[in-house]
Amino acid sequence: MQDMEFTIEKGKLYMLQCRNGKRTATASLRIAIDLVKEGKIDEKQALMRIEPSSLDSLLHRTFDPQDLKKSAVIGTGLPASPGSACGMVVFSNEKAKEFKKLSKKTILVRMETSPEDIEGMHIAEGVLTARGGMTSHAAVVARGMGTCCVSGCSSLQIDEKSSSMMINGVKFNEGDYLSIDGSTGNIYKGQITLVPPTLSEDFKTIMSWSDKYRKIGVRTNADTPKDAEQALKFGAEGIGLCRTEHMFFEPTRIMAVREMIVSSDTLEQRQKALDKLLPMQQGDFESLYRIMKGLPVTIRLLDPPLHEFVPKTQEEVQELSKDMNISVEKINATIEDLKEFNPMMGHRGCRLAITYPEIAVMQTKAIINAAINVSKSEKVNVEPQIMIPLVGDVNELKYLKKLISETADKIIKDSNFKLVYHIGTMIEIPRAALLADEIASEAEFFSFGTNDLTQMTFGFSRDDSGKFLKDYYDKKIFDFDPFARIDEKGVGMLVKMAVEKGRSVRPMMHCGICGEHGGNPATIKFCNDIGLTYVSCSPYRVPIARLAGAQAKVVIYL
Amino acid sequence: MQDMEFTIEKGKLYMLQCRNGKRTATASLRIAIDLVKEGKIDEKQALMRIEPSSLDSLLHRTFDPQDLKKSAVIGTGLPASPGSACGMVVFSNEKAKEFKKLSKKTILVRMETSPEDIEGMHIAEGVLTARGGMTSHAAVVARGMGTCCVSGCSSLQIDEKSSSMMINGVKFNEGDYLSIDGSTGNIYKGQITLVPPTLSEDFKTIMSWSDKYRKIGVRTNADTPKDAEQALKFGAEGIGLCRTEHMFFEPTRIMAVREMIVSSDTLEQRQKALDKLLPMQQGDFESLYRIMKGLPVTIRLLDPPLHEFVPKTQEEVQELSKDMNISVEKINATIEDLKEFNPMMGHRGCRLAITYPEIAVMQTKAIINAAINVSKSEKVNVEPQIMIPLVGDVNELKYLKKLISETADKIIKDSNFKLVYHIGTMIEIPRAALLADEIASEAEFFSFGTNDLTQMTFGFSRDDSGKFLKDYYDKKIFDFDPFARIDEKGVGMLVKMAVEKGRSVRPMMHCGICGEHGGNPATIKFCNDIGLTYVSCSPYRVPIARLAGAQAKVVIYL
Repeated sequence: MQDMEFTIEKGKLYMLQCRNGKRTATASLRIAIDLVKEGKIDEKQALMRIEPSSLDSLLHRTFDPQDLKKSAVIGTGLPASPGSACGMVVFSNEKAKEFKKLSKKTILVRMETSPEDIEGMHIAEGVLTARGGMTSHAAVVARGMGTCCVSGCSSLQIDEKSSSMMINGVKFNEGDYLSIDGSTGNIYKGQITLVPPTLSEDFKTIMSWSDKYRKIGVRTNADTPKDAEQALKFGAEGIGLCRTEHMFFEPTRIMAVREMIVSSDTLEQRQKALDKLLPMQQGDFESLYRIMKGLPVTIRLLDPPLHEFVPKTQEEVQELSKDMNISVEKINATIEDLKEFNPMMGHRGCRLAITYPEIAVMQTKAIINAAINVSKSEKVNVEPQIMIPLVGDVNELKYLKKLISETADKIIKDSNFKLVYHIGTMIEIPRAALLADEIASEAEFFSFGTNDLTQMTFGFSRDDSGKFLKDYYDKKIFDFDPFARIDEKGVGMLVKMAVEKGRSVRPMMHCGICGEHGGNPATIKFCNDIGLTYVSCSPYRVPIARLAGAQAKVVIYL
Repeated sequence: MQDMEFTIEKGKLYMLQCRNGKRTATASLRIAIDLVKEGKIDEKQALMRIEPSSLDSLLHRTFDPQDLKKSAVIGTGLPASPGSACGMVVFSNEKAKEFKKLSKKTILVRMETSPEDIEGMHIAEGVLTARGGMTSHAAVVARGMGTCCVSGCSSLQIDEKSSSMMINGVKFNEGDYLSIDGSTGNIYKGQITLVPPTLSEDFKTIMSWSDKYRKIGVRTNADTPKDAEQALKFGAEGIGLCRTEHMFFEPTRIMAVREMIVSSDTLEQRQKALDKLLPMQQGDFESLYRIMKGLPVTIRLLDPPLHEFVPKTQEEVQELSKDMNISVEKINATIEDLKEFNPMMGHRGCRLAITYPEIAVMQTKAIINAAINVSKSEKVNVEPQIMIPLVGDVNELKYLKKLISETADKIIKDSNFKLVYHIGTMIEIPRAALLADEIASEAEFFSFGTNDLTQMTFGFSRDDSGKFLKDYYDKKIFDFDPFARIDEKGVGMLVKMAVEKGRSVRPMMHCGICGEHGGNPATIKFCNDIGLTYVSCSPYRVPIARLAGAQAKVVIYL
């Protein structure tokens, strides 16, 4: 579509300028479909005319355009998770919950978020943070939830004492109305009316054409039934990554998790805490299997370092001390002992399961029991995929595979039910990619964790690199954010190498990607081209991935 | 040499058992040389009969064997840096200095050491730590200095309040005598007589044979004139790594470094602090060049994150505040701001120079001025090698190379002296190894920083992995410490790939190794086999590297 400017002077036509016409996502779908109907272009050409990321605006609530015109932007941050939101300012999880009880909508405002804020983020209409980039905790979690988020608003100053904040001289007290737009990063004072999204017929047509031409699979990263249901609605073909740790942060469970961590002295005590967690985990997995009705569900064993779960305040320490009859000093010593210099490169992933095999055993029991129960009750064929994180050496995998398969096989034998399960691994450590042929001798599938792989390959952490990457863009050293789009030259070389080496040992091996990159159109094209089986992305990225996957394939046809 | 046990019964000879005879390093040199003199074996065979690491005992003071027999071991730690030491227990840098003024010898005892303890480590006879592995700060620095060190003595409890410590129930107050053996990890109460090392004629013979058959070069890691002189005595052929940051920690300089860091707002203020540092750095380099007399000296630009230099106590903050006329709050805010989640993957290496080019400019001036001065005054040909750390992308190198060469060329032009210098890079980020051909288009030489490369390739940090690697050895997942000996399969694959890719662009390119691995015999063999130009190791490892380098080559002949 061209936007042309012309003039006629003395009977002569002058073309003044001509450029691609801007149009809304809704219009671009309609135009592409109409052109097909009129026989001007074919379906494949139509797909190529739509910008995948523009679909985002069709999936989220947006501000009413009339009302928006009346509102002035008072500040901006990064457009970290699309959609618009309006609510009362709160500065903590607890306040979000209090306001919810009074049926008041909220915007959660934080310096930065941590796993403990998950509940508040679920409750709030939107999230605003002062610190953190496009791949900060707030941004990643909010995108996964489909919650609107503006991150890294550096002009935001929070005064926790007086429960107030300032944005470029505008003061907000707790309870004041704020509106934020996660698609632009704009921040507004007061209320702006919201317009709900609708999945139009045009949208459905484009999605069905996408699926027709697409070869690469599209799965979703989902940890909760809500995420799984949403992703399924958007056309996900399975769960590519279920992070089990998010389940551990729920208030009813964190106590049992802490008991497990603190009882580091005796296996017996730890086992008792794990026994409390087992039925909860099993219940989680049963819900997911029930929703996914036999579609693949890939469950990753516990990944984060244990210090993420320890009590954060001395009140919590005291509660735990009373509950477990362990002295406050001892608990504080354990917390101190768990601290790490570089947590990202510390005691986490499969390293945890090697030190504490009983955690992996508990998780395996939950996965297998749940699969048997749902297979029986729902008459579907659940085939769980157990994924071991952070493997760097084949011996880690051998050790854990033996442990997991012995546990699983015993349950299966005792249950008299024929259940098939698979054990695979994340490829997220450079060494695992380099030695993927060895790893593939033990792993039944690969899933590329490109967040960690990017960190290790570049040698900078997602949380710390924000400080200097700005200089890298300014000085034209980098021209894109390697956490948002895969670095094809370096990280991509490792991924390609790993796929080739893996399939040299196990030819039909399934290889997927489950990092944040899985929802990025440019990355999806790369994944298609190197022959990945599927991409897995957050639920709200699924439609984008379906279209981008089709475009990757169509380019080859055209 | 065989140690045989036999008996004669009823006129019949029974051989009971037979094994390799144990012998001291001194004896093994003598035996090998005597066998050559008697024409039983040739020089190459003689070299193969000596265990390189056994040379260590010839280079350090040892306990008098008679006196040692009378002493009981009260505890053990890791044999982190060889040699024996005896002195009075002190728990801080300051105390070590006080005792030194009274001509009292000390053993510095710390939970773990940090860069600020360097001075105390220099003064003390030996270092004992409660925490930290073979590659902890204490271990690495002590080996570099040739100071005896026992690290990771987990039974050691320090009570700072009462200036005392307990080791397995034995109490020591400040000033009590302690003896430690860094070759065995043994700890003794009281004094044990020490015997000084002598470089015997046999030792010199073996070294000269080693150099005759060795192809791979041996350089040293040296930051101080003392290190450089020691290494030269041991036969080093150059400095492969001079870490400029160690010079920054000296008490007379740390203030200027802190001024530079705190003056983050204005380039002008920062420039003033850098101007103070310039003559000091230049002096450092002049001393090194003078000692090395034209042998290669490779100087690495500032590497550690700035937070390593900030004041550690509020008294220091106040001093800095007064000195610079900046408020305490502002300084504390800067310190807070510099904190990182994962310092190992943070704002360090060349990333610092990209944010603060003026630091690299100051260091370049110091390097080039010093080289011109010494070339003139000593009539030697100093050819400085400027090494840029932590490069992951060729654009980082391009940016800094331009900055450095413009600075250097101007000085050279103004001085009317013909000076040749080289700009190269560390290869210590996996991505740099993967894209070494691109990097080599800008870098004149490579030096493999295998400490960091090992961390990034395995995805675990040297400081944190101690906690779980014990389980890895117990469960037979790892059979050696990848920080002590290079992991040939993974990390080695990257090194080999980088050498090949680098030389595909720059055929005669010098490639060395300057990580801790450079002094490990198995690693030296690997480096020889893949065609590295040299290994660089701490001064006290130089003789070991000379022999190991010869053995690597001789194996091919035999």
